[in-house]
Amino acid sequence: MEVITTIKEIKNKINEFKRNNETIGFVPTMGYLHEGHKSLIDRARIENTKIIVSIFVNPIQFGENEDLSTYPRNLEGDSDICKNSGVDILFAPTVQEMYPNGFSSFVEVTGITDCLCGKSRPSHFRGVTTVVMKLLNITSCTKAYLGEKDFQQYKVIEKMVKDLNIDTTLVPCPIYREDDGLAKSSRNSYLNSEERISALCLSKALKKAKIELDKNKDAKSIIEIIKNEISKEPLAKIDYIEIVSQDTLKPITTIKENVLIAIAVFIGKTRLIDNLLYNIK
Amino acid sequence: MEVITTIKEIKNKINEFKRNNETIGFVPTMGYLHEGHKSLIDRARIENTKIIVSIFVNPIQFGENEDLSTYPRNLEGDSDICKNSGVDILFAPTVQEMYPNGFSSFVEVTGITDCLCGKSRPSHFRGVTTVVMKLLNITSCTKAYLGEKDFQQYKVIEKMVKDLNIDTTLVPCPIYREDDGLAKSSRNSYLNSEERISALCLSKALKKAKIELDKNKDAKSIIEIIKNEISKEPLAKIDYIEIVSQDTLKPITTIKENVLIAIAVFIGKTRLIDNLLYNIK
Repeated sequence: MEVITTIKEIKNKINEFKRNNETIGFVPTMGYLHEGHKSLIDRARIENTKIIVSIFVNPIQFGENEDLSTYPRNLEGDSDICKNSGVDILFAPTVQEMYPNGFSSFVEVTGITDCLCGKSRPSHFRGVTTVVMKLLNITSCTKAYLGEKDFQQYKVIEKMVKDLNIDTTLVPCPIYREDDGLAKSSRNSYLNSEERISALCLSKALKKAKIELDKNKDAKSIIEIIKNEISKEPLAKIDYIEIVSQDTLKPITTIKENVLIAIAVFIGKTRLIDNLLYNIK
Repeated sequence: MEVITTIKEIKNKINEFKRNNETIGFVPTMGYLHEGHKSLIDRARIENTKIIVSIFVNPIQFGENEDLSTYPRNLEGDSDICKNSGVDILFAPTVQEMYPNGFSSFVEVTGITDCLCGKSRPSHFRGVTTVVMKLLNITSCTKAYLGEKDFQQYKVIEKMVKDLNIDTTLVPCPIYREDDGLAKSSRNSYLNSEERISALCLSKALKKAKIELDKNKDAKSIIEIIKNEISKEPLAKIDYIEIVSQDTLKPITTIKENVLIAIAVFIGKTRLIDNLLYNIK
């Protein structure tokens, strides 16, 4: 595995791949890799001849009062995980490399970015789409693998790729959970032991909602069930609980199409998200 | 030459080109082709093995009170010009093909887009960068050819390409002029015979400025000379006259670097632009 930090160098490498008709699977990450990321890499490994993982904590997707400075980093550990997973190139550019002085071009998806996480985190998705556009252009990847834990992010990137005619196939991959149900996230590392237990309320509430959904299609009452479950936890503070169309991300009242049940909850100071994709049979 | 109207069809064709290791020269236009466009095509013809010309009057780069509905169109004539110039593919999509219902992704370059034409035409460049991003992605072109008459447009696209790591080389091409000096423009077709004569004031004023520049480096007095020249024409109404750095497009006071002298003038109802790139030896 090669660790590459400059755009020029990785482009040279990728031109070589292209000349050899390799298919390139790409997993964009912010590092501090966990089993969730690993499941994306494993999937990419099966479907492509070359695998690139990027590690870049993208400053422009963080709000002013968010956790950019404390976001967990461990390039050495990440590098080991990638090496052991058969990654060909680990791309880990600096902020200066990605956003040199005078950088001033942005990609923005409107409409589906002002709800859910976009409401709590204005300008977040503009940062995401801008960096993903750059990374897709840099890697010229055949397929890019994205986790469904950030389902809105997946939908926003899917919209960008379709609207702007980007030649990459996106592959959404299911949420990877701990044995006890907590969705894997680099931000779980912020949790102390008490908070770690408390954080279970997200997946528990969604599990309860899922059971209820088989007999109850009223979004409002499902939201109420989730709210009650999370409110039992004294350390939890709800950011949002929403049931929206998987297609438009617009709230729905009666569940008669495929829906996303999305929640964002602060456990202490840590903001966690989780979701359930519920499909009508 | 093939005339193609769908993205799917042109992508298939381009995949074929790529498999055969062709280099693709691309000339994006709004049609109503003139010798200026032809000079771009001729240059592209020399430097590439395949040539694509797009004709698309891009609605999202027109302001509400601008000339979208009256913009001149002549696909048959354009097609003849392209055929005779050795173009391989003429890509002429519909608005619905480029912006299907629900389209909501945009590319924006900040900083250099709020001055000069961007000041008179807010949101114009957002429309330009969005459509050019789409066209560059659709054509996967090796080189794209842009006229220097829209020098700010060239700079904005150059910034986008650099910032967002797009794998295309841009080739700026000099302004093509009528024998009497008028810069070629599809919008010249709006001019009646009186206005056509009046429109000469733009190139005349720039010519006068150029002579003056060899002895006078004070931007304000150069602007004054241009203003006086244009003001002689009763049909002319100045939108702007500016002397800016070629690099940053910011106004300069003393000409000691390479500058752009850019002017926009209404001749009757027709807004014309012209410019002079003056390089310090």
